Amino acid sequence: MDTKVDTLTELLKRRLFVEVEASGRHVHLTQEQAQALFGHGLTVRRELSQPGQFLANERVSLVGPKGRLEKVAVLGPCRDRAQVEVSFTDARVLGVDPPVRLSGDVDQTPGLVLEGTCGTVKLQEGVIVAKSHIHMSPEDAALQNVSDGEVVRLRVLTRRPITFEDVTVRVHQNFSTNVHLDYDEANACGYQQGDLGMILL
Amino acid sequence: MDTKVDTLTELLKRRLFVEVEASGRHVHLTQEQAQALFGHGLTVRRELSQPGQFLANERVSLVGPKGRLEKVAVLGPCRDRAQVEVSFTDARVLGVDPPVRLSGDVDQTPGLVLEGTCGTVKLQEGVIVAKSHIHMSPEDAALQNVSDGEVVRLRVLTRRPITFEDVTVRVHQNFSTNVHLDYDEANACGYQQGDLGMILL
Repeated sequence: MDTKVDTLTELLKRRLFVEVEASGRHVHLTQEQAQALFGHGLTVRRELSQPGQFLANERVSLVGPKGRLEKVAVLGPCRDRAQVEVSFTDARVLGVDPPVRLSGDVDQTPGLVLEGTCGTVKLQEGVIVAKSHIHMSPEDAALQNVSDGEVVRLRVLTRRPITFEDVTVRVHQNFSTNVHLDYDEANACGYQQGDLGMILL
Repeated sequence: MDTKVDTLTELLKRRLFVEVEASGRHVHLTQEQAQALFGHGLTVRRELSQPGQFLANERVSLVGPKGRLEKVAVLGPCRDRAQVEVSFTDARVLGVDPPVRLSGDVDQTPGLVLEGTCGTVKLQEGVIVAKSHIHMSPEDAALQNVSDGEVVRLRVLTRRPITFEDVTVRVHQNFSTNVHLDYDEANACGYQQGDLGMILL
């Protein structure tokens, strides 16, 4: 009986809400860049909410024309192209002017220098501010009646409630369902751990 | 002819849009506190968009349990009660947990220490994160059909468009019409100078 109620509650929650997470600045590297920066590949510190993704033990410094950010998270596994995801607050500190882009879309973006424990890598491009997006499992996407690539509005139920007006839904069988806000977005809405969002169609 | 077109354009703009400004962390002081911190009253560096309000030449350091913020703006003229308006990003640096409040509503808020060139003032309360609000002249409030104290939704037409869902309209004959976003809000929406907002009723 309790189990049934729990299942229904969980289903209703997944039908109506999405979990929200605040995601700090981070870097994706190629295997060659990891080797150059650390002398070896990435090692796993902990698993992230997206299955298969991990926070690495290794960290880098970001060096821009105006400033530096130290001990920046590196996410694994390695990718085909490097990508640096920062907030506009970070961008101001670094002195770069990145566009708002979805992950992976790094053509004609600014570069910067990465410093690791073993060496330095100069990126010609790759710095973006992440466009707001929702990761969804196929099951949750079906429950909420949205599809991969769809643009929706997302209201977050927070201390300073705001609606993100241009949010892309990304559906993949490897995704667990949640919204990643950057720290500017999280602080703007007064996000606290456990806060939920609602997709407005 | 041109003048008439300009006037109509301006009227239409004021009927449909509000100007948006990004407003950094700042402090309001009493006359006695200014005296204790600087050895004299506040002196005018430049006028602000709200008539009669000014940025002072004097600046203070904010000292919280976890960290400091230096050279913080002081706004004049002096008030009956001190108030420190910070973003959630600032609050994290300082190690304080302020509520979201409208200006002037500082009962049971955290305090912190202010350091000036001549002395130190320990505030027992006064630290807030400003609740989103729109300053409006009576003429513009009438044009947009809103009244003092009304809560509206405000969409900002920016690089990352968002709608602030809980925005208080403040109407006063001394106000010029604009929205003040704090830096978290400004960065969350990718604000650039000149961006406009729309009140959604």
